[in-house]
Amino acid sequence: MCRQGFTYTSPFQHLQLFRVGMKPELRGYHARMTPVLSFHFDFISPFGYFASLRIEDLAARHGRTVQWHPMLLGISVMKVMGLKPLLDTPLKGPYTQRDVLRYAREHGVAMQRQPGDTVMNPLACGRAMAWVNRHQPQRAAEVAHAIYGAYWGQGLDLSTPEALIPVVGDEIAQAAASDEAVALLRAEVDAALQAGVFGSPTVVVDGEPFWGIDKFEQIDRWLTRGGW
Amino acid sequence: MCRQGFTYTSPFQHLQLFRVGMKPELRGYHARMTPVLSFHFDFISPFGYFASLRIEDLAARHGRTVQWHPMLLGISVMKVMGLKPLLDTPLKGPYTQRDVLRYAREHGVAMQRQPGDTVMNPLACGRAMAWVNRHQPQRAAEVAHAIYGAYWGQGLDLSTPEALIPVVGDEIAQAAASDEAVALLRAEVDAALQAGVFGSPTVVVDGEPFWGIDKFEQIDRWLTRGGW
Repeated sequence: MCRQGFTYTSPFQHLQLFRVGMKPELRGYHARMTPVLSFHFDFISPFGYFASLRIEDLAARHGRTVQWHPMLLGISVMKVMGLKPLLDTPLKGPYTQRDVLRYAREHGVAMQRQPGDTVMNPLACGRAMAWVNRHQPQRAAEVAHAIYGAYWGQGLDLSTPEALIPVVGDEIAQAAASDEAVALLRAEVDAALQAGVFGSPTVVVDGEPFWGIDKFEQIDRWLTRGGW
Repeated sequence: MCRQGFTYTSPFQHLQLFRVGMKPELRGYHARMTPVLSFHFDFISPFGYFASLRIEDLAARHGRTVQWHPMLLGISVMKVMGLKPLLDTPLKGPYTQRDVLRYAREHGVAMQRQPGDTVMNPLACGRAMAWVNRHQPQRAAEVAHAIYGAYWGQGLDLSTPEALIPVVGDEIAQAAASDEAVALLRAEVDAALQAGVFGSPTVVVDGEPFWGIDKFEQIDRWLTRGGW
């Protein structure tokens, strides 16, 4: 078979073909030409915070960009999986607090908030993030870092749109109170569940989910080898 | 204050002093002069199997010996923590199966048993292990590897003392059916819970617990630095 006529081949065609085969939730909002890492996190998750400080380096080492996807442990863990909150679980609760502090000491992460402190309602933060993903995707990383830094680093309570004003600015904080933001976060949570995401952090690499900060080294190897 | 008389200082005194301060369950059965790694595992745990293949290398790199401690996820996870079996947990069950197979492929671990296969009753194996720890501690590693290899590697069912005969020999298999072995496993399980152990594998380093095969790199750094 011979092809007739002129065929233009984009130097990025391999990437486009790649994207076509990806699940919808993996396609970039703003990074249409670059393969992505889908980073799923709940703002109340300390290991999600730690992962947020490393995910961009991991992605950049492999020529990828990060998609910042808010999820809700209250939905995945408590409603879908039927489990109790981690810190209320005998044995695992105390262990997890120790594990969080051990990680923070090793990596030099300063935290005003302690892992045993009262957990905020994460809806306002998640809605702000979901709204930014839709309307100002170029600011997604900045907003994620601002919220995580304020909550875990500075120990602020960010459970209301008002509390978000000094952290993400008026426009985004007000948007977090909108019906649209409610729907957008719900869609994010549904998409995460559809992708099999239940814990924070979870990194999805071309459909392959990796749960936990302890998986970052394996993700690195997976990306280097193209899976196995 | 000056000390009078002759004082003998053992070249190992620092280790002895160290041991005195350790919890009883951390003291070696047979390795009284060498610091240990307490390795807690359930034979039904695939990640416990994977960890069993690496724990001795990890210990040896830091001049330690391994203590092989059987535990029961059916007690820690289901009775004490009040959770359902991992593979019956929505989202987490399918993820865990994928995670097991991914690890096995990466590390070249051959398994006749699949992570979704019917789980055996681990009591006979745990009792055999507990009895060996008390009566033939020098064979602990050999027996642990034999059972893990037969169950996961060859896919054999080892839920009865009879089934253990070709794997660990007559004496140990018969001992697994003894009242003493029942009591010894119960003591192992109690000690593990007292030490905060709930998952398999867990490595306890001088009182510091690390849960999961994904923690092996951090344990390595912990041992290198002497903690942080």
